[in-house]
Amino acid sequence: MNGLFITFEGPDGSGKTTQIQQLSKTLINQGYDVVTTREPGGTRISDLIRNILLSTEYQEMQDQTEVLLYAASRAQHVHEIIIPALKENKIVLCDRYIDASMAYQSVGLGINQKTIKDINHFASSGLQPERTYMMDVSVKESQNRLLQRTSKQGEIILDRIEQKAHDYHKKVREGFLEIAKKNPQRVCLINANQPVDIISEEIVKDITSILADRNM
Amino acid sequence: MNGLFITFEGPDGSGKTTQIQQLSKTLINQGYDVVTTREPGGTRISDLIRNILLSTEYQEMQDQTEVLLYAASRAQHVHEIIIPALKENKIVLCDRYIDASMAYQSVGLGINQKTIKDINHFASSGLQPERTYMMDVSVKESQNRLLQRTSKQGEIILDRIEQKAHDYHKKVREGFLEIAKKNPQRVCLINANQPVDIISEEIVKDITSILADRNM
Repeated sequence: MNGLFITFEGPDGSGKTTQIQQLSKTLINQGYDVVTTREPGGTRISDLIRNILLSTEYQEMQDQTEVLLYAASRAQHVHEIIIPALKENKIVLCDRYIDASMAYQSVGLGINQKTIKDINHFASSGLQPERTYMMDVSVKESQNRLLQRTSKQGEIILDRIEQKAHDYHKKVREGFLEIAKKNPQRVCLINANQPVDIISEEIVKDITSILADRNM
Repeated sequence: MNGLFITFEGPDGSGKTTQIQQLSKTLINQGYDVVTTREPGGTRISDLIRNILLSTEYQEMQDQTEVLLYAASRAQHVHEIIIPALKENKIVLCDRYIDASMAYQSVGLGINQKTIKDINHFASSGLQPERTYMMDVSVKESQNRLLQRTSKQGEIILDRIEQKAHDYHKKVREGFLEIAKKNPQRVCLINANQPVDIISEEIVKDITSILADRNM
């Protein structure tokens, strides 16, 4: 596989989607073949799983069910979309990946880290991104942005995960920061409080050097 | 948990459903509190997962996705239905459980046995049935019964798993027989070519002695 697999991580409201759109545009302008995708979702089957995971209807969902559904969605996405694109030498920009499961499910829900790792290793056939941009922002700031974005006609619409308590989201942020600390080669930690254009520049600079190293 | 957890295993067309119905009637007549349920399914969330798993629409489903979806459905079913029923001292009769994953996914699809075991241990929090009735029948006979049962107005309707080739179903049967051999204490192997009433008698006799041992 000669493509380049890049992931974006961070809480909702940290600006991942904006940065992926910007980077995709820049790379396409430079002549690269780019696939942008997201988890959970990205395929027919994964989108059905996403609907179950995020619907506010299913509050009875067990933690184990949540872990396994995220992994099932990922398994389909990796093998149907990501691996074939990498085999065609494309650049894949993916919104969330295994780090999200580690932060949300292991640190956030308190499930054994090795279990989450093993299940996701199986789901992904061990595929790891070459670079991860981790968008870090305070819980207060990400929650504010989220509320602004999701308020429609005065009514706030959050999915099942977004609805969880402040304390849960605080643990998730700590989980992300721990991952960044443990994987300094792969993870590029980004201060997501900065203006959008400054962040974009930082990412483009970093990816340009990766592409040069790879002769892409 | 003072209830009794009983599973029925074997291919489609081996007579599991008929036997569960018979046994349930017998036990209820004797004054027991009985829950009959099935996998995949048995809860709102598990039924949504079942629809994805069995629909003939999703032929692109990856083996890893299949394993994880069965486990996710099981996780919800075990924690929402089976464990609460056992805590209320009920007898749970369940159509298919972890043995089915071992036979269909490990032996049938060729996925590492330990992986399937670990994932399902996580999904079920380690809950094992006290007795498993394994209905054994030749592949030819089970396929014949299945075709008879599913032919509607001359048209044959099989789900995605049932549609798989003869060779796959042969491997699944071998998988079931191997499980019976390895777990002689738990698994009661039943010759499902016998008449329905003879099989029912065999099962009632066996379960009566378990209930006596348990002072239930």
